[in-house]
Amino acid sequence: MRVFMAEKQISIATVQVDLRNGEQYSDTFRAINPRCTVPVLELEDGSHLSEAIAICWYLERRFPENPLFGTDPAQQARVLMWNALCEQEGVYAVAEAFRNRAGGLEGKALTGPLGYAQIEALAERGRTRVQRCMADLDERLARTPFIAGDNFSVADITALVAIDFAGWIKLQIPEKCAHLAAWYRKVAQRPSTSA
Amino acid sequence: MRVFMAEKQISIATVQVDLRNGEQYSDTFRAINPRCTVPVLELEDGSHLSEAIAICWYLERRFPENPLFGTDPAQQARVLMWNALCEQEGVYAVAEAFRNRAGGLEGKALTGPLGYAQIEALAERGRTRVQRCMADLDERLARTPFIAGDNFSVADITALVAIDFAGWIKLQIPEKCAHLAAWYRKVAQRPSTSA
Repeated sequence: MRVFMAEKQISIATVQVDLRNGEQYSDTFRAINPRCTVPVLELEDGSHLSEAIAICWYLERRFPENPLFGTDPAQQARVLMWNALCEQEGVYAVAEAFRNRAGGLEGKALTGPLGYAQIEALAERGRTRVQRCMADLDERLARTPFIAGDNFSVADITALVAIDFAGWIKLQIPEKCAHLAAWYRKVAQRPSTSA
Repeated sequence: MRVFMAEKQISIATVQVDLRNGEQYSDTFRAINPRCTVPVLELEDGSHLSEAIAICWYLERRFPENPLFGTDPAQQARVLMWNALCEQEGVYAVAEAFRNRAGGLEGKALTGPLGYAQIEALAERGRTRVQRCMADLDERLARTPFIAGDNFSVADITALVAIDFAGWIKLQIPEKCAHLAAWYRKVAQRPSTSA
């Protein structure tokens, strides 16, 4: 969300939720988001949105300058498609690898109030998926300058988050993925990424 | 997609992919969608879209009549949020339960060309997640007539797909989920659902 807001050049008051100490499970936070996940956006009417894609789309509609979802129907659809793939095969795959093995997350292999036991085989599967995702993105970036096509979009932000998050499971962009590595250097230089 | 197109009152030539016999892994289909998933939409320029959310959004923009994503930014964001939740906790959770146990899907626990071994614990976790998802949707539908708010939307279609798909793992809406059951009866009566 930080990178997204910086790219849109908008500034919204933020509150950091102390995930490490389980603040997302507190009664106060549950009243805001019963699913106990971040990010959450509070709207003017006091209601709340969860799910990154929903929050980003809301901000895109409210602040149309510097579009991050493309503009015509085909572009927008391509952004949604690649964003979904980067989320599913990137971010969620890292989470699968990380949450099913990390000490301190026993019984918390999925986000949410109810908890799920860790599954060792799933931690391993997550690592495989992340590596395959990187190879797929490398192939994609051999053909287009940005993930969803000619322009930087929210799909690039999701991919960037996935790759940075992969550091937590000690996976870096492999040497053979030269296109992905070049893309990463390019997007990591954008001012938004140090926001 | 069938229900979505019927609600939009649009008609597009469709081709059935023989998933049971593995047509999605054929060279012909891989050239269309290297991820070997359905649905896929072919655009006028010959390019292809995968991922249901991307295809539905493209059709929404091209055929704005009978909106299924809401209209103002907050409505649209709420539709995207609930659609993501129904997909993740509904459709994908059923897939997790089904694909990790079904005979004939050994080595195919996730969609895609590369395959993943079945994990028995995951089949069980999937069932738990589906049951929790139904309870969450029941709670939601105690407060709103449709999943994303006052109007029928693509989130209702995704929820409907999840519940019908849950029949494959022998899970029905439990009796205690009266709001969800009433909603199901209501949406199942729409002409689109028999399209």
